[in-house]
Amino acid sequence: MEQYILKDENAIYYECGFSCDNVIFLKLGEEKYFITDSRYVQEAKENAPTCQVIQANDGLENELVSFLKKTSVKEIMFDPSDFTLSSFSKIESKLKINFIQELHFSKLKRIIKSDEEIKLLRKASVLGKEGFDRLAKYLRANGEDKSEKLIHFKAKQNLSANGKYGLSFEPIIGINENGAKPHALPSKNCLKDGDILLVDAGIKYKRYCSDRTCTSYVDFETINFKRSQTFKNPKHQKIYDLVYKAHQNAVEKARVGMKASDIDNLTRSVIEEAGYGKYFVHSTGHGVGVDIHEFPVISAKNTDVVIEDNMVYTIEPGIYLPNEFGVRIEDTIVMTDGKAHIL
Amino acid sequence: MEQYILKDENAIYYECGFSCDNVIFLKLGEEKYFITDSRYVQEAKENAPTCQVIQANDGLENELVSFLKKTSVKEIMFDPSDFTLSSFSKIESKLKINFIQELHFSKLKRIIKSDEEIKLLRKASVLGKEGFDRLAKYLRANGEDKSEKLIHFKAKQNLSANGKYGLSFEPIIGINENGAKPHALPSKNCLKDGDILLVDAGIKYKRYCSDRTCTSYVDFETINFKRSQTFKNPKHQKIYDLVYKAHQNAVEKARVGMKASDIDNLTRSVIEEAGYGKYFVHSTGHGVGVDIHEFPVISAKNTDVVIEDNMVYTIEPGIYLPNEFGVRIEDTIVMTDGKAHIL
Repeated sequence: MEQYILKDENAIYYECGFSCDNVIFLKLGEEKYFITDSRYVQEAKENAPTCQVIQANDGLENELVSFLKKTSVKEIMFDPSDFTLSSFSKIESKLKINFIQELHFSKLKRIIKSDEEIKLLRKASVLGKEGFDRLAKYLRANGEDKSEKLIHFKAKQNLSANGKYGLSFEPIIGINENGAKPHALPSKNCLKDGDILLVDAGIKYKRYCSDRTCTSYVDFETINFKRSQTFKNPKHQKIYDLVYKAHQNAVEKARVGMKASDIDNLTRSVIEEAGYGKYFVHSTGHGVGVDIHEFPVISAKNTDVVIEDNMVYTIEPGIYLPNEFGVRIEDTIVMTDGKAHIL
Repeated sequence: MEQYILKDENAIYYECGFSCDNVIFLKLGEEKYFITDSRYVQEAKENAPTCQVIQANDGLENELVSFLKKTSVKEIMFDPSDFTLSSFSKIESKLKINFIQELHFSKLKRIIKSDEEIKLLRKASVLGKEGFDRLAKYLRANGEDKSEKLIHFKAKQNLSANGKYGLSFEPIIGINENGAKPHALPSKNCLKDGDILLVDAGIKYKRYCSDRTCTSYVDFETINFKRSQTFKNPKHQKIYDLVYKAHQNAVEKARVGMKASDIDNLTRSVIEEAGYGKYFVHSTGHGVGVDIHEFPVISAKNTDVVIEDNMVYTIEPGIYLPNEFGVRIEDTIVMTDGKAHIL
């Protein structure tokens, strides 16, 4: 009988279709329990009909302890990365139950997506791309001389369709040298003709995330987030073409049966052969689902995970030249019939 | 000699003026160390000049362990609510160091604000109010028949001044019965004349939070977020006046030397005497600083903490009538010269 507890908001959403920022979820075989405080009880009852909702008046952990004391449960699984030391201690110290540590068990369960989940992820990607197109339209009409901060906000506005969709994460906007910081904070740089602009953004559709990065040439008549980009600066063009070649190499050659590290090598080898390996400072990609970062991790170190159909992950090689500029090209792909398809 | 580790983003910002979402901060007496991954190294060096920035290539915990092994450190303090069980285990299992648990030590340190912090909190409150005023203007011009979801987005847009300021938290927008859920999700309800609208929102100025809740009568010619509100529905008026009376009672009578539970009682007693105690389902308030929820907790249970000058906290009584409507009135106050002053 499956018996476990969860605290992670997205992991709990995956279990029962609802979540909030203060909940412990308990699964005992077929029974599901949603333990939350008074603020969320009403919404949980409405939105998690498969769960019994338990109101915690003296902390989630105490409520869980009281509940479990009334049962004959002997052992229970949990993820040690899902509970803080103090939360876990409150639970464990008061119960004579064997707690079994299973690191990332929820994420492991979610590594292969169902066809239904892939539909949602595909829809999220389509909506995300529409958001990029709205942002491009804004930039063509109004982008000139706008600060990264304002473009950051406009990215949120356009990606979210004025708040209709949640965002997968805070968009990353990098103009010129700020694009060389893989997770740059918005600076006061302003957008000018001839700049190189990096935009990494995604939206959530029914809680499933999209994730995409475009690097574009800035010309206020033509700026767009298509893959074909023509830069005036030859170095921009050279690096862009190299990153795109690495990206395409992985999309074309990724196969079911490869290790995650093999996929990483499909992008990295192209960049290394051109002599820019040391400027590709992160891994090739990550799984995407209800979390923006799921399994599989597509990195050189991940030699354990074998790629299977219905895995969904990003391919996002990048080259970052400090104090100059950065290029990253990212798509989210799904493995179908043994091959990678851009969502 | 003070020796501790921190993982919490805001606690680390408080220590060194910069933070990111993947860092362990180490303090050894006067020395500060910012251990982060390659993505954030460059920004950390620029923005945390008092720290030595250490790049972690194999996980933050492993880097911390390697570093500490080279020192003669014998004991180190940490907050068990700040580290997951797996993160802490990775550190503790590889070191012969005595780890001393001090729950919430960073928040305890931050309970009394410096004059400089109060200036930032005051500025945040002023900017937050300006955001409410912009939202009111939007609602007067365009609010009719708009969905809670869209108003939620417009609240973010207007509060943040088009992305200029961060938000303290996702704004809460509740029309009529949705306002009866203290932390409601935006529904598809649309705003109409005669509605009662609850808006809870705040912004961040140099990372310091504002927090304010207004409950307003909806008339598209006059809607505003002032405290004086006239409702057509007598029950709305009765409950509004009662919550405001409770709120004013606490603002007027709060004194240095009282316990936090005494402050809670200043609002709760008014509402209980009127027979609505069971509809006031949360505590009276919470400290505000770089975190939106800091110390002191202003609750009936908190009989330990004595209120002092330079504490900053919210006073936010509410009455929530399920399936009807909710009223909450919230201001952030600072204790100065023994009394409460609205920021």
